[in-house]
Amino acid sequence: MDYRNLRIAILGGGNVGANVADLLIAHRGELEARVGAGLEVVGVAVRDLAAPRTPAIPAELLTTDAASLVTAADIVVELIGGIEPARTLVLSALRSGADVITANKALLATHGDELFQEAAQVGAQLHYEAAVAAAIPIIRPLRESLAGDRVRRILGIVNGSTNFILDKMDAEGWSTEEAMRVARELGYLEADPTLDVEGYDAAQKAAILASLAFHTRVPLESVHREGITGITGEVVAAAKAAGYVVKLLAIAERVGEGDLEGVVARVHPALVPRDHPLAAVHGGNNAVFVEAEFAGPLMFYGAGAGGVQTASAVLGDIVSAARRHLAGGPGVAESTSATIPILPFEAVETRYQIALEVADVPGVLAQVAGVIAGHGVSIERALQSASGGADPDPTATLVIVTHRAREAALAATVAALAGSPAVRRVASVIRVEGL
Amino acid sequence: MDYRNLRIAILGGGNVGANVADLLIAHRGELEARVGAGLEVVGVAVRDLAAPRTPAIPAELLTTDAASLVTAADIVVELIGGIEPARTLVLSALRSGADVITANKALLATHGDELFQEAAQVGAQLHYEAAVAAAIPIIRPLRESLAGDRVRRILGIVNGSTNFILDKMDAEGWSTEEAMRVARELGYLEADPTLDVEGYDAAQKAAILASLAFHTRVPLESVHREGITGITGEVVAAAKAAGYVVKLLAIAERVGEGDLEGVVARVHPALVPRDHPLAAVHGGNNAVFVEAEFAGPLMFYGAGAGGVQTASAVLGDIVSAARRHLAGGPGVAESTSATIPILPFEAVETRYQIALEVADVPGVLAQVAGVIAGHGVSIERALQSASGGADPDPTATLVIVTHRAREAALAATVAALAGSPAVRRVASVIRVEGL
Repeated sequence: MDYRNLRIAILGGGNVGANVADLLIAHRGELEARVGAGLEVVGVAVRDLAAPRTPAIPAELLTTDAASLVTAADIVVELIGGIEPARTLVLSALRSGADVITANKALLATHGDELFQEAAQVGAQLHYEAAVAAAIPIIRPLRESLAGDRVRRILGIVNGSTNFILDKMDAEGWSTEEAMRVARELGYLEADPTLDVEGYDAAQKAAILASLAFHTRVPLESVHREGITGITGEVVAAAKAAGYVVKLLAIAERVGEGDLEGVVARVHPALVPRDHPLAAVHGGNNAVFVEAEFAGPLMFYGAGAGGVQTASAVLGDIVSAARRHLAGGPGVAESTSATIPILPFEAVETRYQIALEVADVPGVLAQVAGVIAGHGVSIERALQSASGGADPDPTATLVIVTHRAREAALAATVAALAGSPAVRRVASVIRVEGL
Repeated sequence: MDYRNLRIAILGGGNVGANVADLLIAHRGELEARVGAGLEVVGVAVRDLAAPRTPAIPAELLTTDAASLVTAADIVVELIGGIEPARTLVLSALRSGADVITANKALLATHGDELFQEAAQVGAQLHYEAAVAAAIPIIRPLRESLAGDRVRRILGIVNGSTNFILDKMDAEGWSTEEAMRVARELGYLEADPTLDVEGYDAAQKAAILASLAFHTRVPLESVHREGITGITGEVVAAAKAAGYVVKLLAIAERVGEGDLEGVVARVHPALVPRDHPLAAVHGGNNAVFVEAEFAGPLMFYGAGAGGVQTASAVLGDIVSAARRHLAGGPGVAESTSATIPILPFEAVETRYQIALEVADVPGVLAQVAGVIAGHGVSIERALQSASGGADPDPTATLVIVTHRAREAALAATVAALAGSPAVRRVASVIRVEGL
C-alpha cells in the first residue's frame, strides 16, 4: 500500500480549534503511526487572522477563506459553532468527498437530517463524538457498541455549567447568584448564560442522544425544556435534607407499549437519590447513564467541556476518519431505521415532589391528600413539619412525594392544589428521577 | 445496492452463545433494518446436541461440525472459550474471509498477536468488545474514541466475582468464606474459583486493555498478578475504618520519562479512597477508569458478566461487522504502532499501607520510622493504637501509610520491618491506589 498523505482542514480557531491544531501538529508522528498515513494540517480557517489564540496556531496555516479550504481536504473539522456558515461549509465539504468531524450540537440538533442524508448520498462519514459530553466517548458506544441492543432510557448530565452551579449550591451551600458569579469567573458561563441555564444547550444534546439511541430522528422542537432558574438555595437544601441532589437532566426514553410506544425527550431539573451514580457527578463534569434492555445500566463519566478535553474527542474522530479513508468504501450511514413516534411531554410518567405551605390545623393533610387522589395520583410519602412557636395563625410545610403518574395528571394536581383552600402557597415543585 | 444476506455462525451454545442466538433470532427484523442487510444465523456449533440450553436454540441450527460451519459464514462469533479449538477455528474463519467476533479473553491475552496479524493479512476484522467488562463499551472507546489521545493509566474493576466478594465483606461485614459461599450460590464463582480469586481472569483483561491503550503488545506473562486470598475480614474492616475500600484492580500505566518510559500492567488488591468513583462499584459490576492526557479522567461502568449482558456487546460487534461487510474494503488493523518497553513490576511506584503489631513502649515509632526512612521511603501518616488494659507486655497496632515509592523499595522495607526487633508481627500489607 502506498503511503498516503491525508489533508486536514480545521474550521474555527477558538479554544477547541486551536487545541486540535496544536495537538495534531505536536503529536503528528505518533498519530501518523497509529493511522498508517500522513496527517497534514493544511489550514485553519478563522474570521480574524490577527486575533490572539491559546495555544498559538502557526500563522502560515491561518486563512479567512474557509470555502476554498474545505474543498481541498480529505478531512474537514468544523469547530465554528452556530448554524451558518457552518452548515454550508459542512455540506460543501461532504460534496467534495471529505469526511467531516463536527462538535456543533446546535447544527446537528437542527439540521442533522440534511447533513446525514448528504453524507449517505456521497458515501462520506460525519463524526461528532465531541458534540455531546465533550471528552466522554458516548456517541460511538451508542452508535456502535449498543447497535445490537435496545436502549430504554438515557439520563444525562450534559451541561457542565449548570452542573457546576447546582453542585456548588449543594456542596457549599452557595446561593444561585453566588454560584453563577463563580461559574462566570471560571469561564463555565458565557456573558449571556441563557443557553446554559435555560437548558437550550442540554436540549440540543438530548435531541442528538435520543436520535442516536432510538434510531429515530428526534427533532429539537419536540424536546421539552426547563432550565434551572427556578432552583433556589432553599430547593437544593430541602432536597439535600431529604436524601436527594438536584441535577439538570437530559432524559430520552421509550414510553408506552406496542402501538402506543413512543419516544419522549426532555430537559429539566430533577431530584436524584444521593446513592445514584449520577449524584456523584461533581463540578463541571458530565455523565450519561444508559439503561439498555440487554446490557442493563451503563454509565459514561468524564469532562464535559474544556479545549483540550474536547480536542481529545475530535482527535479520535480524525483517526477514525483517516482509517476509513485508507480502507476505502463508503461511510456507515446514520441509522434511522426505526420510526418510533415522538410523543409529547405529557405522555411521560414521572414523580413529583411538591412542597406546600398549609395551615397547621387538623385535617389539612386529609384535604390535600383528597385533592391529589382526585386526580388519580397516589402519594408515596408525605412529611409535615410544623412552623413551631406560638404563631396565632400557624403555617406548616407539607412535602409530598408522589408515585409515578402521567405528567399531565401531575400538572393538573399542582394546579388544583394551588387553588385549594387548604393550601396557602405551593412553595416548590420538582420532578424526582432515578433508578 | 442489492440486498445482501449475511451468514452468521455461532461457536458455542453456552450461556452467552444461547443468548446471542436467541436475541439475533428474536430481534432479527430490527437488527436487519439497522444494518440494511439480512442477518441469518446459519448454525450454532456445540459439543453435545442434546444438552439442555437456556434460552433454547432451535434444534435445526445445532451442529457438532464447527470446522465446516466457520468456512460457510460471513461473520463468525466465537464463544467457546479456552485456547483450543477456539484458536484454530478463529484462524480458519479469518482465512476464509469472515469477520470474527470473540469474547475469549484467554485466547486474546495469549494469542492476540497471531490472530490480529492474520486478520490484518486477509483484511478481516477481529471484534472483541465482550472480552473485557462484558456489557460495558470499553474496547471501542479505547480503540477509536481515544485513538488520538495518550492514555496514562487504566484502573479497572474487571472481575465481577471478586468485586462481589469484596463488596459484601465491606458492606455487610461478611467473612471471606461467607462471601465466597454466597458468590458460588449465586453463580458468580465457578466450582474451581482459582481463575477469579487468584486474579488470572483480571490479568488476562489487564493484558488486553494495556495492549489496546498503549498501542503496544503487552504479553500476559508480563502482568504482575496477586489475588484476593490474603484479604481477610480484618483487612476490609480496617480499610473501612480508615476511609478506604478494598478492590481487586487491574492496572495498566505508563511509568518513567523519555528513554526510561515503559508500560507496567498489574493485578492486585488495593485500597481505594471511598470518594473515588471506583469505590462506588458494587456487587458483580465492573468499571474501567481511564486517565488520558487530553481527555482527563473518564469512567465506564456497567454489568461485568451475565449471558444477556455479554450478548449485548456481541450483538454490537455483529452489527459493526455486518456494516463493514456491506461497505467493503479491509478491516482496520489493530494498532501496535508504538513499541513502548514493557517494564517489570518493580518499576512501578505505589503507596503501601502497612499494619504492624509492635511493643507498646516509648520509642517504637521512632525505630519503625527509622527502618522505613533507611529504605528511602517516606511516611505519609502513622496511626498508633494501644492495646489498652493492664497487659504486662502490651502490644500496640501501628498503621503506616507511605508516600509513593518504587515497588522494590517498598518490598524491601516490609522485609526489613519483619526482621526488626521493634516489630512483633507484620499484620497486613496492602497497596493504596486512587487519584
